[in-house]
Formats: sequence, C-alpha cells, structure tokens
Amino acid sequence: MSKISVGIVGISGYTGLELFKILAKHPKFEIQYIANSSGEESIETIHPSLLKVSNLKIYKANPRDIANKIQLLFLALPHQESMLFCKELLELDSQIKIIDLSADYRLSKENYELNYCQHLDEKNLQHAVYGLVEYQREKIKQARLIANPGCYPTASLLGLLPFLPHIQSSIFIDAKSGVSGAGKKLSSNTHYPFINENIFAYNPLAHRHQIEIAEKCQLIGSKEVKINFIPHLTPLTQGMLVSIFATLKETLDPLELLFDFYKNEPFIRIRTQSVDVLNVRGTNFCDIYAKCSGNDLFINTSIDNLMRGASSQAVVNANLMFGFEETLGIPMIG
Amino acid sequence: MSKISVGIVGISGYTGLELFKILAKHPKFEIQYIANSSGEESIETIHPSLLKVSNLKIYKANPRDIANKIQLLFLALPHQESMLFCKELLELDSQIKIIDLSADYRLSKENYELNYCQHLDEKNLQHAVYGLVEYQREKIKQARLIANPGCYPTASLLGLLPFLPHIQSSIFIDAKSGVSGAGKKLSSNTHYPFINENIFAYNPLAHRHQIEIAEKCQLIGSKEVKINFIPHLTPLTQGMLVSIFATLKETLDPLELLFDFYKNEPFIRIRTQSVDVLNVRGTNFCDIYAKCSGNDLFINTSIDNLMRGASSQAVVNANLMFGFEETLGIPMIG
Amino acid sequence: MSKISVGIVGISGYTGLELFKILAKHPKFEIQYIANSSGEESIETIHPSLLKVSNLKIYKANPRDIANKIQLLFLALPHQESMLFCKELLELDSQIKIIDLSADYRLSKENYELNYCQHLDEKNLQHAVYGLVEYQREKIKQARLIANPGCYPTASLLGLLPFLPHIQSSIFIDAKSGVSGAGKKLSSNTHYPFINENIFAYNPLAHRHQIEIAEKCQLIGSKEVKINFIPHLTPLTQGMLVSIFATLKETLDPLELLFDFYKNEPFIRIRTQSVDVLNVRGTNFCDIYAKCSGNDLFINTSIDNLMRGASSQAVVNANLMFGFEETLGIPMIG
Amino acid sequence: MSKISVGIVGISGYTGLELFKILAKHPKFEIQYIANSSGEESIETIHPSLLKVSNLKIYKANPRDIANKIQLLFLALPHQESMLFCKELLELDSQIKIIDLSADYRLSKENYELNYCQHLDEKNLQHAVYGLVEYQREKIKQARLIANPGCYPTASLLGLLPFLPHIQSSIFIDAKSGVSGAGKKLSSNTHYPFINENIFAYNPLAHRHQIEIAEKCQLIGSKEVKINFIPHLTPLTQGMLVSIFATLKETLDPLELLFDFYKNEPFIRIRTQSVDVLNVRGTNFCDIYAKCSGNDLFINTSIDNLMRGASSQAVVNANLMFGFEETLGIPMIG
Repeated sequence: MSKISVGIVGISGYTGLELFKILAKHPKFEIQYIANSSGEESIETIHPSLLKVSNLKIYKANPRDIANKIQLLFLALPHQESMLFCKELLELDSQIKIIDLSADYRLSKENYELNYCQHLDEKNLQHAVYGLVEYQREKIKQARLIANPGCYPTASLLGLLPFLPHIQSSIFIDAKSGVSGAGKKLSSNTHYPFINENIFAYNPLAHRHQIEIAEKCQLIGSKEVKINFIPHLTPLTQGMLVSIFATLKETLDPLELLFDFYKNEPFIRIRTQSVDVLNVRGTNFCDIYAKCSGNDLFINTSIDNLMRGASSQAVVNANLMFGFEETLGIPMIG
Repeated sequence: MSKISVGIVGISGYTGLELFKILAKHPKFEIQYIANSSGEESIETIHPSLLKVSNLKIYKANPRDIANKIQLLFLALPHQESMLFCKELLELDSQIKIIDLSADYRLSKENYELNYCQHLDEKNLQHAVYGLVEYQREKIKQARLIANPGCYPTASLLGLLPFLPHIQSSIFIDAKSGVSGAGKKLSSNTHYPFINENIFAYNPLAHRHQIEIAEKCQLIGSKEVKINFIPHLTPLTQGMLVSIFATLKETLDPLELLFDFYKNEPFIRIRTQSVDVLNVRGTNFCDIYAKCSGNDLFINTSIDNLMRGASSQAVVNANLMFGFEETLGIPMIG
Repeated sequence: MSKISVGIVGISGYTGLELFKILAKHPKFEIQYIANSSGEESIETIHPSLLKVSNLKIYKANPRDIANKIQLLFLALPHQESMLFCKELLELDSQIKIIDLSADYRLSKENYELNYCQHLDEKNLQHAVYGLVEYQREKIKQARLIANPGCYPTASLLGLLPFLPHIQSSIFIDAKSGVSGAGKKLSSNTHYPFINENIFAYNPLAHRHQIEIAEKCQLIGSKEVKINFIPHLTPLTQGMLVSIFATLKETLDPLELLFDFYKNEPFIRIRTQSVDVLNVRGTNFCDIYAKCSGNDLFINTSIDNLMRGASSQAVVNANLMFGFEETLGIPMIG
Repeated sequence: MSKISVGIVGISGYTGLELFKILAKHPKFEIQYIANSSGEESIETIHPSLLKVSNLKIYKANPRDIANKIQLLFLALPHQESMLFCKELLELDSQIKIIDLSADYRLSKENYELNYCQHLDEKNLQHAVYGLVEYQREKIKQARLIANPGCYPTASLLGLLPFLPHIQSSIFIDAKSGVSGAGKKLSSNTHYPFINENIFAYNPLAHRHQIEIAEKCQLIGSKEVKINFIPHLTPLTQGMLVSIFATLKETLDPLELLFDFYKNEPFIRIRTQSVDVLNVRGTNFCDIYAKCSGNDLFINTSIDNLMRGASSQAVVNANLMFGFEETLGIPMIG
C-alpha cells in the first residue's frame, strides 16, 4: 500500500518541528508539503538540527497548493488564521482530512467567541471532533476535522476523566509548563534572564484553556463544573506537570479507580508513588498519580507539552482517522 | 554601645552560610563563635566564596564553649540534634537567647511526636515562641527561645493569615521550592541530571510541614482547619512560590483585604498583578497576590526559601528579641 | 534473517539506558540480556521512563550466563571492572563480539598504566580496535573487540583529524560537558545547587582523556603532539562543545578543508557559521565549524556526550562489525 | 561631610539596576537623579524587585537636567548614544565626573572606528582613562572621565597582566558568559528554549572585545600581541569564566607569580585548585587560577559579569576618583 500524503502548515514553530520529526519516521505517512507564512527556504535553514536529515522546500502556505494533492493536513497556525485557512481549503477540497492544532475548533461557538474572537467558520465547527483519544476514540475515527486539544486541557482532562462523577466541590488546577509552551515568539516572559531561576503564575483564573477544560468537563459529566485554572511558567524547556485539587462526595481508592478506568489505554501510565516530567519527555505518555486525604483529592499528571500536548497527540488522531493502529509510529521512548 | 555577641551552630549548611552573610554586615550583632560537627577548619574552606572576606575559625559545636560567653545563638542543626544541644545549653546558661531553625520547638509535643520523633526537651518547648513576626510580634519580643518557622509554613501562613476567618472549605496548598531547600546533603532527587529539566511533587499530603501549617492555622483561627499540602522540587536554586486554593464563605475583594491587613508590615508586599520568585530573591520580603472567581480563592505568595524561609527571618526575630528596629540589617535589596 | 542477539552489561547508568533505547528500536539487533551488579529488578524499576515500554528482567552480570548465548555484548562498566569481565568472557566464548565503553582497551598498555591502573588483560588489548569510525572504519569492520572512544576524545579528535598535518604548535582544547557526563553517581560537583548557575574547569591538564587524545593524535600524525586539555562542567544535562586552538604552519581555508575531508561522512556536519549543542542533541552527529585568524586556528565541535560520545557511537561500531549499513537504526533526528 | 550627589543614565538595563543597588547602600554617594530614554515612570515599575525599597522618579535623560546639579554621573547607555550624551554634558558642565560603561571611550580613535563607528567626541576621548584599577590605579584617581572596561576584557586582562612579559606565542581566550551579558533586549539567542540546555560560541575571532583586549595588552606590554578571542553564551544568568591559553618563553611557577603580582590587591583572589562562577557571584572579586604543562600556560579567571564586569567596577572607580577607600561600599559578600 502506498503511503498517505501529508502536509504541515506552520512548519516554523516548535509544534511544526515536532510534527515533522514524528512524521518523518512514520511508516504510513509521507510528508509531501510543508509551509509557513513566508516560504522560500528549506527546512534545515529554519530548523538547523535537520541539516543532512531533510532539505525539503518550505512553501508559502496556500490552500490552492494543497487541495486535491494531499490527503491529510496538520495545521499548526495561530488561532483565527487557522480557521480562515481551514475554511478556504475545505471549500476547495472537501475530502481532505485536517488536524488543527489551534483553538479554533475546540469550543462551542459561544465559548469560543467569549474567549477568543468572532468565529469565522461555523459550518466546519459543527462537525469538528475534539481529539482527546481516551475520551472519544470512536468519534475520532469518523472525523474529517479534528480539533487537537490544548496542552493544559490534555493534562488536566486526563487526570479528571475518572474522577468527575465523584467530585462535589469546585476544582482547582495548578499547572506548570515548560517555556516551549509559550512558543518561539520572543517575549519578556521567555527572556532567559527573566524566567531562569524564576517561576510564576500567569493569567490566573483567566487563561483561555480554563474554558476549554470547563466545557469538556461539562460535556463529560453532563453538569456544570467550576474550574479554577492557574498556569505557571517554569524554568525548563519541555514538559508539563498538573496538580488537580477537589473534594469528593465519598472516600474512594484513587489508584484503584485509575488502574481500572485506564486499564486498556496504551498511552496512560498509572504511577503508584509520583509522576515527574522527565519520564514522559519526548513521548506521548500521560503519567498519572492520585492520592486522597479523607474526601480531599489530589491528582497529579505529567505530559510532554509539545508531544502529548500537541504534536504526537495529533499523529495519534491521524492514525485513528486512517484506520491505523493507534500506537503506530508514536514515540514511546523519549 | 558594644555589639551583641552572636554564635552560629551549624555553619556548614546553606542556612548557616546565609546567617553568616547577614550577620557579618549587621550593625548591632557581632559573630564571635561559629561551629559545625567536626570543627578544625576555617570558614573560607567550607564556604570558598568567603575567601578574603573572613577566615573565622570553625569550632566543634559544644554547649560548654558557648555558655556565658555569647548572648545570642542561632541553631541551624537537623531536628533532634537541635533540641539536645539547646537543652544542654540552657541548663548551663539560662540567660542566653536562642533562635532555633529546626522543627524541634515549632509544634505541640503531640504533633511533634506524631511527625518527627520523641520530644526530648519538653521544658523549653513550653516557653518557645513560634517566630512568625506578622503573626505574633509582641510575643517574639519577650521570647528567650524562638522556633524559627519552616520555609513552606512561612510562605503558606503569610498568604493565609488574612483569609482564614473567611474560608469555609478544605485548603489546598501547591508549593514549589528551589533545590537549596533540600539542603546540602547529596541525594538522587538533587542530582543535577535528575532535577534539571524536571519538576515533581514529593511527600504529597505527607510532608512534615503540613502539620506545622495546620497547627498554626488552628491556633490563629481557633478552629480545626483541613490543610492539604503538596510540595514540589523545581529546577532553580533559591526561591519558593506557593499557591493556595480554598472556597470562601462569601465574596470579597482579596486585594483590598490584603492591603488593609498588611498595611503596616515592612516585609510584606502586596502585588496587584502577580508574584514571582526573582523579585524576592536575596531578601526578607514576602510578596502576595490574590484573586477570586466567585467564592473560589487563589492566593499566591513568594519568598526566598533560604532568606525569609530561614536565615533573614531568624535575624528579624533576633532584632525584635533585642529591641532593635525590625528591619535593621535585613536584606531588602536582592 | 533472524536478528543478532545482543546483551548490555551495566544497564543502570546513563549510557546503559541510551544503549537500550537505541537497540530497542534497531531493526537488526535484539536485546536478549541486560545486567547490572545486583540483578533482581526489571528495567522499568531502574529506569521508570520505560514503564509500559519494557519490563525486561535485569540479571546479575555474569560471563557464564552470556557465553555462547548472545552474539554481541555492550559493556558499560567502570574501568578495571570492564577488562576483568571481558577477559573472563572471551575465555569462555572466543566468538562473541564485544564493544567496551570503558577506557580499558583504548590506550597502549604503557599509557593506560600511567593514567589508570595495572592492565589485567594484555592479551585482548593487543587486538582491540579503537572505535572511531571516521578514523579507521575498515579496521572496525574486522574487529572482535572494540574500545569505544571517550566522549571528550571523540569530539576533540573529529575536530583535529583534518588539521593535524597542518599544525605546528601545541594544541589547546577547552571542552564543555553537560553534567550527565559525570555519571549517575552522586557527588558534590553534580549537586544541583552547586553546578546550577555555575561553570568550572576540573582536572585541568590532568584529565585522563588528555592522554587518549594525545596518543591517538600521535598515531594519526606519526609524530609527537602536545595536547593541553581542559574539561569543564556546565549547567546542562546532555551535550558537549569543544574548542580547539592551535597555530598552523601556513594559512589555509579551514571550511574548505573540512568539507573536503569529511565529504562522504554520514555523521559529520560542517557548519559555516557556528555549532551548538541543541542541534546534535539525541543524535550521532558531530557538528564542526572552524575559522582562522592568520595562522591561528579555532576549531569548534559539538556532540551529544551520551550518544555520539558513548552509546550511539557504540551501535555504529556494532553495525560495522556485523556488516550492516553504518547508519542503520542510528538516531539522526533528536 | 555631605554625600556626593550621583546620577545614573540608563537605569532600565541590568547594569543600571546593579548600579542602583550598590549606590543605594553606599555610605558616601547619594542617588539624586535616574533616567532612561522615556522617563515618566518610577523605578519600582521598571524594576519590580525594588517595590517598597525605592520609588524614585525616572527622568527622561537630558544633559541640561544634570549639568551643575550632580557631581558624578554613571552612563549606562549603548555605544554612540553614550558619547553624544557625554559630549553635550561636558560642554555644559566641565566639572562633573563621569564613568561611562559603554565602549565609547575605551579604545584609540583608530581602533574604535575600525570596530564600532565614527568617533564623535575626540576631545574627551583624549583625556578619558581606562578604568581597570589593578592596571592603572593612580591615573584613575586623577581622571574626570572613566571608560569602564568591558566584561570580557576585565576577566581576560586580569588573568593576563602578570603573564604578559613571559608569553611568546599567540594568545587564545575562550570565554563563557552568563546570558545577562547580552542585555535586556529580546533576541533569539536569549530566548529560553534556545539557550537553555545549550552552549555556543558567537562572533568567534570577531567580537568587539577582542580589540579592546589586544589594545590594552599592547599598551601594557609595549609590543604587539596577537589575541584570538572566542566568547560563548552559557545557560546561566550571571557570571563569567575565562580560559586563557598561551606558550611561555620559559617555565615558571604560575601560582607563585600570581600571588606575588597581586599580593596587595583587595579584589583579586588567587585560587590554588580552580575557580568557579558561584564564588564570585554578586561581588567585585576576580578569582584567578593558573597552571602550566611545560611551557604551555592555562590561566582561568572568573568574575560576575554585571558586577566586576560592569557596575561594581564602576563604583570602585568612583571611589578612587573621589578619594575614598577603594573597597568602600563595594560588595564582597554575594
């Protein structure tokens, strides 16, 4: 069988690079098109670690060049740009499958517009599927447009999924991200002398991923859930650790619940002592630990923010959309 | 007026060094005795940053050498060793003032023995004063034996103090410490290739500082408070950031409450946007920020774990015990 | 064709883990035996990142368990232990191929004994081959026992190889290593609060790799070469940057020389602006840059100390010994 | 005696902040004017670590506001801006003393124009004094305009001073700087995910500090010296380590020479084992170690790039210019 032809739009950023690295080794996908906003260079110019690995030409992103030529597109663009591109492309080629790594198709129109901007592609929003595998694997298999989850929501929801029916209080989430989560764009927050030897919360109770977590919790649990989300920037490049706090309706054995809930999941690892960031680095794993004190619950999850929080999760979604084994070509050794 | 003669027992560790550095510049205290468990070297051998600054001889710690010769002793020993030393010294010299940086005099006998070991100096435990200045400045002024608070309890209690009467739920504390908090002793947790690029919770819901926070909250609020405490090791040397989560009985303006509560405190800074670790580094400041979402409360505090969390707080206590201005010789510029 | 059966002795350390990770994905080698000094556990206990990836049992290392059962052994033991193990094994099974990652077979007996200890396996030392592929690829193909080069010598020699005939002065090497190069054993040099925010030379002009570089330079150039080698520990986990300084007999174009000398080498990348550590991380590449000022020469090389400096280089040697394509299964994407 | 009135122009950057922190505690200088290019804010807005320490107003920098009002000005401006400001100010007030931290008055007109831009203030360049205390203390005492040395030249020249008469070869300097040396301005080199876990040379053999080192070596030694200078960016915030390599005319005991040469210097510490960056952090010390192998020489120096490499060195110069004790108010405890 010939390979599936694949494109990446937004190749210059960190998630674009990780997508490239995974797909370049994947046995069933073949990268045939990469693009950014300017074009004109080859990939090893933008990503010098790829010298002697690939000198694929980078195109200036254009839906017309993609339509009817490739079968699967990964969109790693900023929000708003993403839906404009996607909309135009799907008008030209309704058969192409798309995995969008931006926020544009993750939320209801209402929640999106409260937290981002006006939604410009309601038509495709209606059939987009939120690509959290452990939550709705079957829907993903049928999808043509995947909204790849945000990094914080991935690590938060995977911790919450088993416990949601048992929680009676507000939920507090204290999340710590490596600096690559802030992207490649220069900012004073990511200037080395500022974030090195430092740690701080940013956008407390106001980060856009808070609504993404809350909306999905509500869908999963069929009832309103109060999410209080505090993200932090921490002095490491890649990785994410999430602490979740809540009070349960009744006492339970959290590890037993976790082992049972996730017993068939290839990318979830229940840890009995603790989780950390190094163990998941460079992989699609989400490690989970939980402990109770009376009815008070502490859940601890770790992921690689660029992998499970973005690029490798996107390729897992792609595997499912094309009927491949879920783990095919997915990094499990960091 | 001649200076107060001061000693430090436990000079080899990080807090011993910071004590030395503060006291060496202090206008009213004069270091006349420093000791560790072995003796025999001079201070710049153990702390080579002090070459050409001091070549004070280090003694082998012995209460007999201290009694009736110095007026103020800082004890920076491991718990249990500390109370044995303190007990013997106070039998020899009942007039000496002591600031103990270990856990030995921080807790009730009952709580101590549940979390550490048998208490071996109940007599002095009874009159020891918990040295959190903003909580009980007047008692500290009268004390002869100060139990210097733990680093995590300092950052947690300073955040909680104004809010305790308003909280109705369990309290969740997510604390992030720099690695110096784990001390100078080698361990796999503090081996560079393990903690660099990593972050992890340790002793979740079981760290000994949990009971210290809970006991003090109960004393302050005159009622049982449920503390759920999760400490983390983070890849930075010095600094501590603490997030506190709880649900309030009623809505309130948390910044207004903070500004009002701490309006006369020289070492508390209320921040209106966020706190971070760099801003307090090398100082005795505790920076505090808070925000509510409905009745759900987020408090964020930052301190330097070796300064406000140990050594500079100890010298503030010393200032009060000797009737000096609280801020005298205390680092406020990092 | 069935796969080559492979063993790793010394699985607990950093190089043991990297060997495992490369070999687990290799299409022609199959790990059938792993061992350390104690045995009894499975690999994901020692290396928790491998949970759900492998639960291979770890044996207590014993030559008798290996002889006549596996075809290729990687020895990742401390020096001296390594030659004792190797000697005993080769007496039991003279057909097994061995790649030794210690220093035991890298040097002449004379140089070894001046810098390490008495050599206890002269017989096998005589036919051992120094496994620097770009230097003596053909000899490696015929070898039964490979001495895998040290990390510093690898990065130094790859920079020096093209220039040796042109150098007339003493050679100065300023090498910067990540902390993983110091191994998993705890030491005050690798305690996080000491090496974080720090950088320092250690064993200046006296590191054991100095003689390894000098001996090989002499063999390559057929004349005495004076090497002055200064290694540094730098605050990063993985990576190595080496600066080489010397004065040339005559002016030349260093980049032209490099491009020409290494034109057919798959793992050497000549850079025209600079090299850094991130670009080679997780790969077997050695990046090289050079520049002259008059007759004064600056060569700059970077490798991943655990990969090209140890484990991936070892697997390249293994590929050659078994007649496989040199690049087979070797990481080129970090 | 009343204090000397002092101003700082260029308060927003890292060296401006360090100047402020030193001068704020200095017993003889009083900060009466601080300025940057925009004005309008107070200092704790730009440097939030100073909240509750100072709320001094920041002015828009203007020579007219300074002339005849303050006695000593520190200029922490980019090159070119600095000489324009200085020239205008000295025309308005010829009595004011100035310490310029830029490169504008460090070099001969010829060398300056080859490496920077046209010199626009030749008049004052002629009487400016290069402020390296250990080189020309007496000249500094008489100066009205000090060119404060660059960070790399400081650490390099202090290592070279005693050895220059004995060197017969080209000199190679491999310097490693913390990231604060690159300043507060955002750049891709100082973006955390790029420099973290990385290390690289920049501007090899072409950095502007190379000519500063070479010119001063020539003045000191009265003969042409060939300097080959390679600066590196390393993943730490503050600190600098410099390795110097050369071949001597004859063998000598380098430590003996160092101890003798610097025996009366308060800010030079000769180390007998090694130097590192942590020991000098936050101080004006320069630590030096040296070792020979035959006639080949290795010199190793360490400084804090923002302190001895800029701000504290500037205040030492100020002390000398006003006849104060050289060490007055200068940080010697980090």
